[in-house]
Amino acid sequence: MTTVAAYAVPAAKAPLERTTVERRAVGEHDVLIDIKFAGICHSDIHQAREGWGEAIFPMVPGHEIAGVVSEVGPGVTRYRVGDRVGVGCMVDSCRTCENCEAGREQYCTGSGMVGTYNALDKNGEPTYGGYSEKIVVDEEYVVRIPDGLALDVAAPLLCAGITLYSPLKRWGAGPGKKVAVLGMGGLGHMGVKIAHALGAEVTVLSQSLRKKDDGLKLGADHYHATSDPKTFEELRGTFDLIVSTVSAPLDFGAYLSLLKTEGTLANVGAPEEPVALNLFSLLGGGKTLAGSMIGGIAETQEMLDFCAAHGIGAEIELIGAAEINEAYERVLNSDVRYRFVIDTATI
Amino acid sequence: MTTVAAYAVPAAKAPLERTTVERRAVGEHDVLIDIKFAGICHSDIHQAREGWGEAIFPMVPGHEIAGVVSEVGPGVTRYRVGDRVGVGCMVDSCRTCENCEAGREQYCTGSGMVGTYNALDKNGEPTYGGYSEKIVVDEEYVVRIPDGLALDVAAPLLCAGITLYSPLKRWGAGPGKKVAVLGMGGLGHMGVKIAHALGAEVTVLSQSLRKKDDGLKLGADHYHATSDPKTFEELRGTFDLIVSTVSAPLDFGAYLSLLKTEGTLANVGAPEEPVALNLFSLLGGGKTLAGSMIGGIAETQEMLDFCAAHGIGAEIELIGAAEINEAYERVLNSDVRYRFVIDTATI
Repeated sequence: MTTVAAYAVPAAKAPLERTTVERRAVGEHDVLIDIKFAGICHSDIHQAREGWGEAIFPMVPGHEIAGVVSEVGPGVTRYRVGDRVGVGCMVDSCRTCENCEAGREQYCTGSGMVGTYNALDKNGEPTYGGYSEKIVVDEEYVVRIPDGLALDVAAPLLCAGITLYSPLKRWGAGPGKKVAVLGMGGLGHMGVKIAHALGAEVTVLSQSLRKKDDGLKLGADHYHATSDPKTFEELRGTFDLIVSTVSAPLDFGAYLSLLKTEGTLANVGAPEEPVALNLFSLLGGGKTLAGSMIGGIAETQEMLDFCAAHGIGAEIELIGAAEINEAYERVLNSDVRYRFVIDTATI
Repeated sequence: MTTVAAYAVPAAKAPLERTTVERRAVGEHDVLIDIKFAGICHSDIHQAREGWGEAIFPMVPGHEIAGVVSEVGPGVTRYRVGDRVGVGCMVDSCRTCENCEAGREQYCTGSGMVGTYNALDKNGEPTYGGYSEKIVVDEEYVVRIPDGLALDVAAPLLCAGITLYSPLKRWGAGPGKKVAVLGMGGLGHMGVKIAHALGAEVTVLSQSLRKKDDGLKLGADHYHATSDPKTFEELRGTFDLIVSTVSAPLDFGAYLSLLKTEGTLANVGAPEEPVALNLFSLLGGGKTLAGSMIGGIAETQEMLDFCAAHGIGAEIELIGAAEINEAYERVLNSDVRYRFVIDTATI
C-alpha cells in the first residue's frame, strides 16, 4: 500500500479538498503510474453532486489521466518504467463476457466495467481517480500515449476524445459525409477536430456564435447558432450524422429534422431527465437516435494513435489543484476553452 | 374518366358508405387495375378519424391493393392485360431526388411521396384508395404479384408485409440473430413469418399469451407476455433487434433493456402522442432507437418475390364491403386474426 496525496469530494455536493488515499501494492499485472495531468470532465461534477444517482464518498474524481510508468509488476509485458501512458474511464471489467471479448469493455455485461473512481473494484474496495499523485492499474486497462502527443493535451483524450471518436467511426464520419457536432464544449471541440481529421465536412451547432472563430480554427467548415430558428430551416435534411454532446434536455425532433434520410443522431451527452420524443420524427426518413458511451480499450488506443498521427490534442486551460473548485463552477457556466487540466504536481 | 364504385368516409370520424369516384383516363404510362382485394390497415382508421392530423374527404381508404391489369397505356412496358399486380402506400413521387433515385421513394424529399389515398396527385386531384372497383396507377408504382401467391393473402403484403420486411432486412435479421416482434397484430404476424423465413430466432412479445398458439404456428420460437414483469427480467439483454409494431405509447426504456449491446429497436408503429425517453437507456449499451416507414418500390417487389418463394401470405379474414365499419371497430379492439381483407366484388 502506498499513501498518495489527492483532491477529494468528502460528501455529495461538498467542495473538493486536499487529502490522502491508499493505493494498493503493485500486483503481478499492475502498473504504477506517476500521474502528470488529469482532465476535468463534466461527468466528474455530475457524480460529485450525485446528479446521476447515489455515489461513493470520499470521491477522488478524474478519468482523464496521463502520466509515466514508475513501477511494474512481475507479470507485466506491455509497459516498462518510463513509458508514457494514459488511463480513461475504467480500470477493470469481467474480461470474459461477449462484450469484453469483443473489446467493448465499457459495456461489460459480466460484473460490469469498474469505473476509475466512484466504483468498487473486485475486492470491494472503492476506486479513486486521477486528481491524485499516483495510481495503480492493471496493464490491460492502460493505454500508451504516443510520442509527439504532449501529456497535458493528451489527458482529455482519454474520455472526451474516445467519447467522440467512437461514434464518429461507428457511423462512418469520413470523406463525402456531412457531420454536425452539437455543442462546442469539452466534448464538442474534440468532435470537431476528430471529424475534420477523418475527412468529413463538419458543422458546429452551438447555442450562440460566441465560439465561431475557435470552431472554424479547429476544423469546422460551418458554424450555426441553435438559438436562431433560421438554422433549422436552412439545414433541414442536411446531415448524415449528428453527434450531440449536450447534457441539457433537447428538442430531439428539431435536431432529427436536420438529418438526411436514414441519418443518425448519436447522443453522447447524458441529460439527467427523460426527454419527450415524437416517434414520427424517426419514422419519416427512417432515422436513428442512438447512444454511445466512451469506447473499448483497444479503440481508445486506436484513437490515441489516430490523434498523434493527426497532431490532435485537446485545447486546454492548465490549472493548479487549488483551482479545482473554481474550475467546476466555470465548467457549469460553460466558461472554459475547452478543457481544464490539473497539473498534478500542484497537489 | 371512369366512374367506379367505392366505399368512402364522407367526413372525419363518419362511418364509411357506398359511393362512386372518378378515375382518370388511362395515360401514356398508366395501368388500369381491376381491384380484387383490399386489406384494411390500422392507418386507414387513423386517417379516417384524423388521428394523424387533418385529412381529405371524402376519403376512399385502402393501400393494400391486389388485382389484375385490365388496360395499359401506350407507353407501358412492364405490364400487360391480365397481369396480377399490387399497389401499396404510394402512387407517385418526384422521381428525381436523391431518395427516389436510390429507390427510397417513400422518403421522397422532392414533392414528397403521393399517398394512395388522402393525398393530392401532381395535378392537385385527390387520390382514392383500394376500397374500390378499379384504380389507375403509373406503372412505376405498380408491383407484380408472383404466381403462387393468392391475391387475397397477398394484398396485406403491400403495406404490412413491406413495413416489416424493410427493417428486418436493414438491421440484419437472419441466421444467428435473435429478433423480437413486439405486437401480434396485422403488422406483427407478418414480422413473425418474415423474420422466421429470413432464418432468425424469433420471439413474440405480446400483451398476453392469448395468441401464443398462433404465434408459434406462424414461425415464432418463443412467445412472452409483456404484461408479466418476469418477461423483462428473463429477457434482459437478449435481442439483436426488436421491431415494434405498437401504436400505443410504450415504455421504451423497458424494451431497450431487452436489447443486446449495440442492438436496435426499430419502430414501425406510429403513436399519436410523444413518448418519454431516458437517454441513459441508449447510452448504456450503445443502443439504437430507429424508425422505419414501409419501403421503396423495388424493395416491395423484392419482398413479394421473397414471400412467394417462402409461401408467405397474410393470415386474413375475408369480408364483404358492407362489413367494413364493423371491421374497423374490431381492428380497434385488436379482434382480428390477423388482417381484414375486403372482397371488392362485393362493392
